[in-house]
Amino acid sequence: MSNPANVKAALRSLEIETPSWAYGNSGTRFKVFAQAGVPRTPQEKIADAAQVHRFTGSAPSVALHIPWDRVDDFTELAKHAHDQGVRLGAINSNVFQDDDYKLGSVTNPDPRVRRKAVRHLLDCVDIMDATGSRDLKLWFSDGINYPGQDDLRDRQDRLAEALREVYDRLGPHQRMLLEYKLFEPAFYATDVPDWGTSYAHCVELGPRATVCIDTGHHAPGTNIEFIVAFLLRAGRLGAFDFNSRFYADDDLMAGAADPFQLFRIMYEIVRADALSSGIAFMLDQCHNIEAKVPAVIRSVLNVQEATAKALLVDRDALRAAQLEGDVLGANAVLMDAYNTDVRPLLAELRTEDGLDPDPVGAYRRSGYGERVVAERVGGQQAGWNA
Amino acid sequence: MSNPANVKAALRSLEIETPSWAYGNSGTRFKVFAQAGVPRTPQEKIADAAQVHRFTGSAPSVALHIPWDRVDDFTELAKHAHDQGVRLGAINSNVFQDDDYKLGSVTNPDPRVRRKAVRHLLDCVDIMDATGSRDLKLWFSDGINYPGQDDLRDRQDRLAEALREVYDRLGPHQRMLLEYKLFEPAFYATDVPDWGTSYAHCVELGPRATVCIDTGHHAPGTNIEFIVAFLLRAGRLGAFDFNSRFYADDDLMAGAADPFQLFRIMYEIVRADALSSGIAFMLDQCHNIEAKVPAVIRSVLNVQEATAKALLVDRDALRAAQLEGDVLGANAVLMDAYNTDVRPLLAELRTEDGLDPDPVGAYRRSGYGERVVAERVGGQQAGWNA
Amino acid sequence: MSNPANVKAALRSLEIETPSWAYGNSGTRFKVFAQAGVPRTPQEKIADAAQVHRFTGSAPSVALHIPWDRVDDFTELAKHAHDQGVRLGAINSNVFQDDDYKLGSVTNPDPRVRRKAVRHLLDCVDIMDATGSRDLKLWFSDGINYPGQDDLRDRQDRLAEALREVYDRLGPHQRMLLEYKLFEPAFYATDVPDWGTSYAHCVELGPRATVCIDTGHHAPGTNIEFIVAFLLRAGRLGAFDFNSRFYADDDLMAGAADPFQLFRIMYEIVRADALSSGIAFMLDQCHNIEAKVPAVIRSVLNVQEATAKALLVDRDALRAAQLEGDVLGANAVLMDAYNTDVRPLLAELRTEDGLDPDPVGAYRRSGYGERVVAERVGGQQAGWNA
Amino acid sequence: MSNPANVKAALRSLEIETPSWAYGNSGTRFKVFAQAGVPRTPQEKIADAAQVHRFTGSAPSVALHIPWDRVDDFTELAKHAHDQGVRLGAINSNVFQDDDYKLGSVTNPDPRVRRKAVRHLLDCVDIMDATGSRDLKLWFSDGINYPGQDDLRDRQDRLAEALREVYDRLGPHQRMLLEYKLFEPAFYATDVPDWGTSYAHCVELGPRATVCIDTGHHAPGTNIEFIVAFLLRAGRLGAFDFNSRFYADDDLMAGAADPFQLFRIMYEIVRADALSSGIAFMLDQCHNIEAKVPAVIRSVLNVQEATAKALLVDRDALRAAQLEGDVLGANAVLMDAYNTDVRPLLAELRTEDGLDPDPVGAYRRSGYGERVVAERVGGQQAGWNA
Repeated sequence: MSNPANVKAALRSLEIETPSWAYGNSGTRFKVFAQAGVPRTPQEKIADAAQVHRFTGSAPSVALHIPWDRVDDFTELAKHAHDQGVRLGAINSNVFQDDDYKLGSVTNPDPRVRRKAVRHLLDCVDIMDATGSRDLKLWFSDGINYPGQDDLRDRQDRLAEALREVYDRLGPHQRMLLEYKLFEPAFYATDVPDWGTSYAHCVELGPRATVCIDTGHHAPGTNIEFIVAFLLRAGRLGAFDFNSRFYADDDLMAGAADPFQLFRIMYEIVRADALSSGIAFMLDQCHNIEAKVPAVIRSVLNVQEATAKALLVDRDALRAAQLEGDVLGANAVLMDAYNTDVRPLLAELRTEDGLDPDPVGAYRRSGYGERVVAERVGGQQAGWNA
Repeated sequence: MSNPANVKAALRSLEIETPSWAYGNSGTRFKVFAQAGVPRTPQEKIADAAQVHRFTGSAPSVALHIPWDRVDDFTELAKHAHDQGVRLGAINSNVFQDDDYKLGSVTNPDPRVRRKAVRHLLDCVDIMDATGSRDLKLWFSDGINYPGQDDLRDRQDRLAEALREVYDRLGPHQRMLLEYKLFEPAFYATDVPDWGTSYAHCVELGPRATVCIDTGHHAPGTNIEFIVAFLLRAGRLGAFDFNSRFYADDDLMAGAADPFQLFRIMYEIVRADALSSGIAFMLDQCHNIEAKVPAVIRSVLNVQEATAKALLVDRDALRAAQLEGDVLGANAVLMDAYNTDVRPLLAELRTEDGLDPDPVGAYRRSGYGERVVAERVGGQQAGWNA
Repeated sequence: MSNPANVKAALRSLEIETPSWAYGNSGTRFKVFAQAGVPRTPQEKIADAAQVHRFTGSAPSVALHIPWDRVDDFTELAKHAHDQGVRLGAINSNVFQDDDYKLGSVTNPDPRVRRKAVRHLLDCVDIMDATGSRDLKLWFSDGINYPGQDDLRDRQDRLAEALREVYDRLGPHQRMLLEYKLFEPAFYATDVPDWGTSYAHCVELGPRATVCIDTGHHAPGTNIEFIVAFLLRAGRLGAFDFNSRFYADDDLMAGAADPFQLFRIMYEIVRADALSSGIAFMLDQCHNIEAKVPAVIRSVLNVQEATAKALLVDRDALRAAQLEGDVLGANAVLMDAYNTDVRPLLAELRTEDGLDPDPVGAYRRSGYGERVVAERVGGQQAGWNA
Repeated sequence: MSNPANVKAALRSLEIETPSWAYGNSGTRFKVFAQAGVPRTPQEKIADAAQVHRFTGSAPSVALHIPWDRVDDFTELAKHAHDQGVRLGAINSNVFQDDDYKLGSVTNPDPRVRRKAVRHLLDCVDIMDATGSRDLKLWFSDGINYPGQDDLRDRQDRLAEALREVYDRLGPHQRMLLEYKLFEPAFYATDVPDWGTSYAHCVELGPRATVCIDTGHHAPGTNIEFIVAFLLRAGRLGAFDFNSRFYADDDLMAGAADPFQLFRIMYEIVRADALSSGIAFMLDQCHNIEAKVPAVIRSVLNVQEATAKALLVDRDALRAAQLEGDVLGANAVLMDAYNTDVRPLLAELRTEDGLDPDPVGAYRRSGYGERVVAERVGGQQAGWNA
């Protein structure tokens, strides 16, 4: 793969989906700091996402979050996206912000609430039909805060029942992505805390149920690339929610906290020849204090750079060293790729593709940021509650 | 200390301060679930706190948070508290919710913002003068999200300068409590991340600067009772913010996640004869999904129970086993106290003191919860933003 | 279940298996501190284990470790155990102490080493035939220390192949217990790092492959009782290796670090009516600095006490509170059982069964410890390398 | 600093000390895998260390460990080192491998054992006098495994007393380096668990007591570069023990697990102009499965590369972005340096200095490894117990 032409071809096939909510305001429980120029509508979020694609050439789709991005006419919204040069991607459900969900959604002890939650999920599939989205992403905030608060096993039964109903509703070209998360907002136990739980439910459901790995949702010390390799082998890796974390689900820019980890993850993808095999490479980030569009651009670049390095690994030499038991030699082959500065290669690729070699600089020079600050006055800025 | 009379006397000396904000709404970044009957004013929060004291006999003071509890006349508020049977406790500053503090307060790179933050802290001391509070509690959300975002060392210089100005403003009977926190809302580095940082600044400041230990603010695996023992030995333990955590700063009820840890902490207090030596035993909790007043009562009882068990440790036997190097024997002495059911002893104590032996039940039977739900209609419920 | 007779009956059904290696010397990489009186042979280890059963009445079987406990005639060893009042339990394989296993055993890149490892596992099944053991416990130290050192996915293929061969060799009444471990002795990636990996392989293998949970083998913050509940629901919980940890795989006495966690684990067992349904409740501990036999007795008592508390949970009241969404009420039902001092109940049970109510004290008074110190002179003390 | 000549000059001033024990056998509690050609004597270890210096030009000194490296005549040993082209560095004490230290050394409840331990430390200072070493490195395995086993606070008193006696024995040009470690081999509490504890004792002792940061000795999530910055500001950073960890104190090659972290650490050094200000940059590693001499060479190169990147940071641009509050801009300045491939620069530097540009390759080509395998036959290989 060290052949530069092959590396470039592979990089051209890499598509990163950006999330509509990354363009809106976000924050911590302590404070949401509003930023000037933030979108007020799904259409404006899509416009921002289109800028990311315009300058990177690698972010052709936008994930939606329902109800934050609910519109009357999703077909219209899909057309709007198309006009902007992007397309609508995964539909993300939200069963955590209604007062009814205080003690859970699909695993709530109250059957009325469970029904309401499932109905929302089915609604999301209706929306997928309208938008042409392939993926339904399910993240459940469901869990409990105190030992004894609810029955851990009953909640699995309720979860399985809800997932079954939703899975059976999917069309033949639609998939379910089941995300897991160790904690937050539930603090003692979450109902899908780890990849094993997600995987077991997916296997029970059927082939179109796959696991979504959010890189910020693990216990300290978890080896994420192992999970990637394992799920690829089992044919159950559906998607990534890329972001960075130092401690918990910090939702920082992908590649910002541990670029070596991101490289190792992308290496497992490359090693399985899975760069363009249907895995959804999505970002799921919160730009609480930094400018949002350039932060998304930077994140896309970080994923690209990690992928480029992964593509540069001399796989023949690596395999030879591994099979010889040459610990230092095998590690050195991997590190040689990681230590390479791939920015010139990527700049070249962009130039060949008619893009500015410096996407962040080009975005800044475009004046888009200043323009939206001037234009987006009044109205209600988008955020997690809008 | 196994003498029941001595144990009871010691328990009577234990005073737990409850935080005004525990009575208001709280939540996670994902959702704040409002609860009926929640206070709308500092006065109503104090009324709720008074209920906790009424039924436990151990929670005679309420910590205030500025500006959440700002009133025109703090002397009046102190009188209101006194009329309710409680008193005003520590003043908690807030330099994290103004838009200016996006990149920090006292450590902000912008001197104008630093000045504003220091001014707020000085205002808090003015309020202490009015309320008669002894303790100024400083928690800084200051920190950075990305490597390089700001200079780690410059921020320490700015922090030291601000603390110095505030410390010098304190009256002779006032103290500074400097809290530390590993992360959140800053995700890469916080400016006071651990006890060592807080301790070093306190030593530099002077004798009335002491460390505040929030039991939820540590890295996984941190031995909190070691810190307690160390700071007691150094004369620098000023206060606790009790709460429970399974993962991060979950702010659950004290004693709910690891009651054995709480016991070990209280044992170090008892071992240092420091139950009534000026350490402020405060709660700092968020009751996101459970009823607030009974949750605070339960937390107070949990601290009481842990303390009672700590008082039951046969310290002579423990020391003898320790000095003999009898690992199992020494551990057994400690566990014997921990495994004791101290609820009958505490019930007896309450009965002797004219309290209901079952504070949670008595609170429920009192009808207070229903009454405030009926009465507190309209207005703006208190929360972290009000 | 609050009926004391039922609780006692359930406690009588609880059988805890102790590991032969807990009676030998153990330590850390820094130092193994030898203790006087430590067994020199498998027979002497079994004699020690028999003491634990003699005083607790709850530890009727001993797990063996091959080759540490290899003897010429295992039928004879089984008879020896029977004569001592215990029986032989699970066979634990060891594919980590031969120089050939430096880079792994069943996942080693070298097929010769893999074959050797599989042969050892098959030998262990032969031994099971001789001892009448039901369970083959597999723990693999396999893993890698450096990124790139070996291919994560190839190693899964090799693992699956080896497991298949061993599984197919099992007799109809024999089971495979597949243990997982996050790290140590491999430091970058282990080949069975978490329950999900173990579970996925077990499902692939067949119904007699089940997961073994070692309570010290998880990432910080892992909710172990969730895993217990999940595997019970899936019918794949085969065994526990009980021990305590504060940080890593510390192998301290069960219940010593977090007795509340042990209670929550046992509650999930009780809730699934699985106390005597074939799950192997084993200890896996290292008593590096404390006397070994009394440490094992203490550990057995700790598991018993946690189970007794779990049995005391008022499950009807708990379920009612859970279904009502009464967070505090449900938690209180659980905590009420946990806070109960069950030692009097257990003392009563022992007296009824003709045992001394105080097993640790009775053991000390028996003079066994002094006797073996006097008798076991000369020879090679047992340890991890013998 | 972006000036290449300045960068090279700074890199030339970087001296990395390698530990004698890295050249001997090491392992985990599960197994020590012996390697052919491993040194049998302190002299042979020094010969290996000299190879590292010969090929890197940056490792001019070797740390000794007493008693592992005890010889009759240390002056002679110093001369031997000099003849090999290196010098003797820090003296590392060992108070953890004598049977007497089962329950601690300087904090042991038994005063006889404490005395013995202090005497060993004083002996080490005598050795320093003979070797001309500046630094006495103290790492204590002291701690306890079970709550209650010993008194946390008494142990601090004993520690302080021992440190005082040793500190007072130091000559005017000698320093004490006090290392801290969260856990292992003690599992519940260690007596110097964190930098705060070490720092507080150092301040109490005097100016020549400084903190040693072992990069593998922290709780998960600890921000090590913060500690570096803090201790530099306080004038109390004495030394590093560099190595890598994924989970616990894994002692892998420096820079192997998180090269970005190593860069951030070295950046704080560069930012404080402290590359050649007396801080001892030492490695403390175990090469359990990989060839030892090339693993040490690789580690030295990793520290060099991280330092080179740190030197390339455009500090003026960084400061400007930081002061403007330009989060993304400041982060980008740092990342720009990190993403640079500094290997060509370092190759150039080596060529200018008469070294082979590829130290690992040159070492392999030198035949040294094969030669010592052939020569070092018979005798007792060095390891942690010899």
